[in-house]
Amino acid sequence: MKVDGVAYRSIWRDGNESAVTVVDQTLLPHRFETLRIETVTEAIDAIKRMVVRGAPLIGVTGAYGYAMALAADASDSNVAGAYDALYAARPTAVNLRWALDIVRAAVAGLPEAERAVVAFATADRLHAEDIRTNGTMAANGAALIREIWEAKGRSGPVNILTHCNTGWIACVDWGTALGVVYSAHDAGIPVHVFVDETRPRNQGASLTTWELGSHGVPHTLIADNAGGHLMQHGAVDICLVGADRVTASGDACNKIGTYLKALAAHDNHVPFYVVMPGSTIDWRVDDGVKEIEIEERASDEVTHISGISGDGTIVKVRLAPKGTKAANPAFDVTPARLLTGLVTERGVAKASREGLLGLYPERAS
Amino acid sequence: MKVDGVAYRSIWRDGNESAVTVVDQTLLPHRFETLRIETVTEAIDAIKRMVVRGAPLIGVTGAYGYAMALAADASDSNVAGAYDALYAARPTAVNLRWALDIVRAAVAGLPEAERAVVAFATADRLHAEDIRTNGTMAANGAALIREIWEAKGRSGPVNILTHCNTGWIACVDWGTALGVVYSAHDAGIPVHVFVDETRPRNQGASLTTWELGSHGVPHTLIADNAGGHLMQHGAVDICLVGADRVTASGDACNKIGTYLKALAAHDNHVPFYVVMPGSTIDWRVDDGVKEIEIEERASDEVTHISGISGDGTIVKVRLAPKGTKAANPAFDVTPARLLTGLVTERGVAKASREGLLGLYPERAS
Repeated sequence: MKVDGVAYRSIWRDGNESAVTVVDQTLLPHRFETLRIETVTEAIDAIKRMVVRGAPLIGVTGAYGYAMALAADASDSNVAGAYDALYAARPTAVNLRWALDIVRAAVAGLPEAERAVVAFATADRLHAEDIRTNGTMAANGAALIREIWEAKGRSGPVNILTHCNTGWIACVDWGTALGVVYSAHDAGIPVHVFVDETRPRNQGASLTTWELGSHGVPHTLIADNAGGHLMQHGAVDICLVGADRVTASGDACNKIGTYLKALAAHDNHVPFYVVMPGSTIDWRVDDGVKEIEIEERASDEVTHISGISGDGTIVKVRLAPKGTKAANPAFDVTPARLLTGLVTERGVAKASREGLLGLYPERAS
Repeated sequence: MKVDGVAYRSIWRDGNESAVTVVDQTLLPHRFETLRIETVTEAIDAIKRMVVRGAPLIGVTGAYGYAMALAADASDSNVAGAYDALYAARPTAVNLRWALDIVRAAVAGLPEAERAVVAFATADRLHAEDIRTNGTMAANGAALIREIWEAKGRSGPVNILTHCNTGWIACVDWGTALGVVYSAHDAGIPVHVFVDETRPRNQGASLTTWELGSHGVPHTLIADNAGGHLMQHGAVDICLVGADRVTASGDACNKIGTYLKALAAHDNHVPFYVVMPGSTIDWRVDDGVKEIEIEERASDEVTHISGISGDGTIVKVRLAPKGTKAANPAFDVTPARLLTGLVTERGVAKASREGLLGLYPERAS
């Protein structure tokens, strides 16, 4: 997607270089800079410092880092050692392990001299697949936006409400829910996005607004509290969110607060879609509310906040009285009954076991 | 209620002094200081600078300010002039006008020499009535908390979720929803409060936490996004909120985000009560969603936030990219169908016209 008119991806390799360039996400939204990663050590550092963030992007970065490691030392011991070192950079990132496994399998049994080339080619493939999957998913979702626009008699923009950041900088390009927005916008459908600020980490206020502004998509930032009121008054035509995990029965685990917006959408007959690739479905889990354990994050994410002060420095301030105890569940689960559908790279499914198996019949057993 | 073991009110007059002392709310939660108000000019300034805030407290402060004005000059022209000057300090505050009207009516037709004394006595009466009304309402609500505690077999605390600040510093003492919490706590019922931070103005994070901590009530701060998840997992026994306005049919207009919590409570069979005096009922309004116009506040309340930095200075920081447009509706309306009941100084009513007329039969026409 674009930044000031120039098309970017969150990570890219120029030609056959054994290096990649990434957008430095630690500086967003206040500064846009790119960073060159040339060694596995730098790749690990980028993952640890959250220079790169978002599950798909972390996976691809890990794959390139693995290739850089093998370019420096393709011995069996480094195939194992680099895997472990990269995995340890973010052990909770399922996509990182998944990407590292694919690269390791691709180089297994090859002569040492061929390993780096094959690893880079494999990383390139993951990179291209992420773009292709998200682009297809975005187009599938954009068809829904077009339907709403037609139903409105092509009058005024389609008003979309979204939560958290699900954009291109969390993936390689496009994004999930925001990918749909970009696809509709680029196809000439007028859209306007209400962006939930998404406390406590404010990914909406800082990253989604930055992405949409940079690409030229009209948007309005709102407090997380405001969406229900807007839906009561007909200001929202559709809600689009991403998901960290979708269960086999269609429950969606996503950023904390998603459930509240789904309740409001349901109460006001506003369509509510989860946009996510099939890889997000956890076929082993059925009842998301009962079975998914929710990560509890640091309480200072709630009691403190960072922003830019008048003199341009980034400052962390405390919002609550000193010593205030805070709880910080990172995700919640929206039951399938509240979802209008799931938008995937294979099409749109009902949020149910039958719906998902219709798109992924190979999972029927 | 207490601050470090000492009982305070948000405003008080010592003996027959023609001055009052207030808690300086501009410094909370970072510093607790009181301020003496001796003249009508100081009273106007305190209302304008939000040294005092909360509808009942603004009304009582206005009444005392009016008495101070008459102590200095009890002429007919000042009875009119001081009224206008005080009213202009916050023209949108219905309680301010209401209190000024009562004082003006009390001194009307009196000899000039008696006006100040009667005005102070009238202000004292409003002060006492606010405490009595809120104390009774608090006790009525505490009975609900006790029922829940008994139903839990007196095991563990009663977990209460609240939104915004509805405590003693917004009134003269007790508060509305928080008054119920204090009443239950002081009666020896173990309570624990989940405090919504209440974006964008963060009254929960800054004021409610400060009040509860100062009085010694166990509490946990949460992002506004977290309440639905907590209710899904049985962590909340009851929700208690205040209201800016309740319609004749029981719809509740309250701080933005209240509606989302009511939806979650309804979805999870958690009782949800609005606590407010009968004076909050607007008998002219029926359908709150359709008829109540919602105030749109400044967008920088969403894009910027104030907090205390590491060096102890209060700093305002920007959270969103420069120039980001934000919408900031201040209130929303929770339909009566989502409310378990309304707690008033006359008892607990169903959120319906019949329920309200049962408590306020003088309103039947």
